Amino acid sequence: MAKTAAAIKKLMPMFDRVLVLRAEAVTKTKGGIVIPEKSQGKVLHGTVVAVGPGARNQNGEIVPPQVAVGDNVLLPEYGGTKVEIEENKEYHLFRETDILAKLEM
Amino acid sequence: MAKTAAAIKKLMPMFDRVLVLRAEAVTKTKGGIVIPEKSQGKVLHGTVVAVGPGARNQNGEIVPPQVAVGDNVLLPEYGGTKVEIEENKEYHLFRETDILAKLEM
Amino acid sequence: MAKTAAAIKKLMPMFDRVLVLRAEAVTKTKGGIVIPEKSQGKVLHGTVVAVGPGARNQNGEIVPPQVAVGDNVLLPEYGGTKVEIEENKEYHLFRETDILAKLEM
Amino acid sequence: MAKTAAAIKKLMPMFDRVLVLRAEAVTKTKGGIVIPEKSQGKVLHGTVVAVGPGARNQNGEIVPPQVAVGDNVLLPEYGGTKVEIEENKEYHLFRETDILAKLEM
Amino acid sequence: MAKTAAAIKKLMPMFDRVLVLRAEAVTKTKGGIVIPEKSQGKVLHGTVVAVGPGARNQNGEIVPPQVAVGDNVLLPEYGGTKVEIEENKEYHLFRETDILAKLEM
Amino acid sequence: MAKTAAAIKKLMPMFDRVLVLRAEAVTKTKGGIVIPEKSQGKVLHGTVVAVGPGARNQNGEIVPPQVAVGDNVLLPEYGGTKVEIEENKEYHLFRETDILAKLEM
Amino acid sequence: MAKTAAAIKKLMPMFDRVLVLRAEAVTKTKGGIVIPEKSQGKVLHGTVVAVGPGARNQNGEIVPPQVAVGDNVLLPEYGGTKVEIEENKEYHLFRETDILAKLEM
Repeated sequence: MAKTAAAIKKLMPMFDRVLVLRAEAVTKTKGGIVIPEKSQGKVLHGTVVAVGPGARNQNGEIVPPQVAVGDNVLLPEYGGTKVEIEENKEYHLFRETDILAKLEM
Repeated sequence: MAKTAAAIKKLMPMFDRVLVLRAEAVTKTKGGIVIPEKSQGKVLHGTVVAVGPGARNQNGEIVPPQVAVGDNVLLPEYGGTKVEIEENKEYHLFRETDILAKLEM
Repeated sequence: MAKTAAAIKKLMPMFDRVLVLRAEAVTKTKGGIVIPEKSQGKVLHGTVVAVGPGARNQNGEIVPPQVAVGDNVLLPEYGGTKVEIEENKEYHLFRETDILAKLEM
Repeated sequence: MAKTAAAIKKLMPMFDRVLVLRAEAVTKTKGGIVIPEKSQGKVLHGTVVAVGPGARNQNGEIVPPQVAVGDNVLLPEYGGTKVEIEENKEYHLFRETDILAKLEM
Repeated sequence: MAKTAAAIKKLMPMFDRVLVLRAEAVTKTKGGIVIPEKSQGKVLHGTVVAVGPGARNQNGEIVPPQVAVGDNVLLPEYGGTKVEIEENKEYHLFRETDILAKLEM
Repeated sequence: MAKTAAAIKKLMPMFDRVLVLRAEAVTKTKGGIVIPEKSQGKVLHGTVVAVGPGARNQNGEIVPPQVAVGDNVLLPEYGGTKVEIEENKEYHLFRETDILAKLEM
Repeated sequence: MAKTAAAIKKLMPMFDRVLVLRAEAVTKTKGGIVIPEKSQGKVLHGTVVAVGPGARNQNGEIVPPQVAVGDNVLLPEYGGTKVEIEENKEYHLFRETDILAKLEM
């Protein structure tokens, strides 16, 4: 965590990269029973916290992205780059085209 | 199932992704005899329940998709991403170009 | 066979996909002698029974296909996706560009 | 041979495919001595007997081929699809771009 | 270190390459305790010290880069080419598109 | 050698292919001493003897080649297709883009 | 060395290839101590001695190169084709895009 995290005030993704804060795993049932970690499943959705200006098309022009800060998004199981910004928070950078869907929750 | 499912009210696929609800396997013959799971075969068709705005072409323009909500579609045996939205329902995200055919049933 | 088949009334291939009904293997010689299955060879031609609207070019425009329903076509030995529509009939979906030739028979 | 062959009256290659009748191996020396099969070498030239309308370019337009029926052509050692049309004749389908050269003989 | 280093006065990256001076690993805690090397983690950010003129697009035109000298950047864990310019300094060349994000620190 | 060779009067390469006659290995030193085959090295240059009309660009237009008959060219160590035209002569077909350089000798 | 070298008067690289004369390894310290070969490191810079006219873009037009004869360049550790022109000189052909940077020394 110490690596890069301490000093980062703001992260501006390059091109079509999108910074997503992964939702936290549900660790207790509604009734309050602790769910063993193995049964919690991998959390595959999160909230967009930063968006790059967009990828370049083949002419070198910027193509604006289709997600915005605050969007709830469905994430692929694999891919993305973990970024260590804040302790105990899972930040990941995804290419816009890897994001599967937007969610209303 | 618990992971993402509980809270999702609406899922809007990104780009040319299509959300398909797979048809349920036939588990009994018309005569009422239970078909053993092994003999049921893999269900390879389903109903489109959500469609993205379309992929971008090489100029970054959106190309409208050729399937619509409610279409019955023939699915490839492999590919697609399983999405857990509702218990006992098989939702999958496919790229539009992976869908083999539309079906009238 | 039971899987998808029973209910399909019509299959409309997506993009440049072409539905081909493979010709039946010759199982007897003209003289009436039964040819052992091993010697029958793989049947590599068939009849086009449905054609998609065409693939998209790089601008997202539809390119009309060059085969039509009723065409006799020569098929590649590998490739194509088997589709179960009718019992004892071999239906396959091919991309238009995988079809080797049209045949006059 | 029986497979597809018997009934084919005409074969029209799709896109940029070219049907080539491979030249027969020289099985005797000029002096009449039989050359053992092992020493005959692989025949790598033949005569074009049918040409498709041409491949599509990236805009979906047909690009006319650069070989014509009757051309003697040099063939690559690998590639091409064997087609069974006539007994004891070696017909192969090649993409136009796989043909190495035209020959004057 | 001796290899290339001694004589280099200036390095001008080609195309969309970017020369980054990697930040130094934190080797002591704020309290002054030495962190064992194993626990220091890999430093994944740095400062841009030189930028190429930009990559060519498909028409051969130069596309200006989106990072500038002095930018703090987040680097991918793998990729990049180590360049030996100065002793005990970690210089790496990255393609602009491999840089994950700009950072305010 | 017998295969294709005997009858070829002229070979016209297709597209951007170039027919090169490889230079003969130096088998004796200037002083007349025979160099053992192992020490002769692989001859990697030759003379262009035939040039195709040029490759097609993405619009299907012919792009004229940049080598001409008579050019001395430097060849890559691997790649190219050996063609048997004349006994004891090494003819090879290369794509124009595989030729490394022209040589003045 | 004997192979191609003796007779070459001039080498004109094809397309975007660049002929680089690799700098000689430092074999002695400034103080005159011989550095063992193992410690000399791989020399990764050199001088451009010949430049091709440039690669073709997708329309078949020549794109002028961005290095010139006399440039000091930083080379990738792998890639490039060794060319034997002069004894004890390391000449290598690189694609322009493989050259990492220009150097002022």
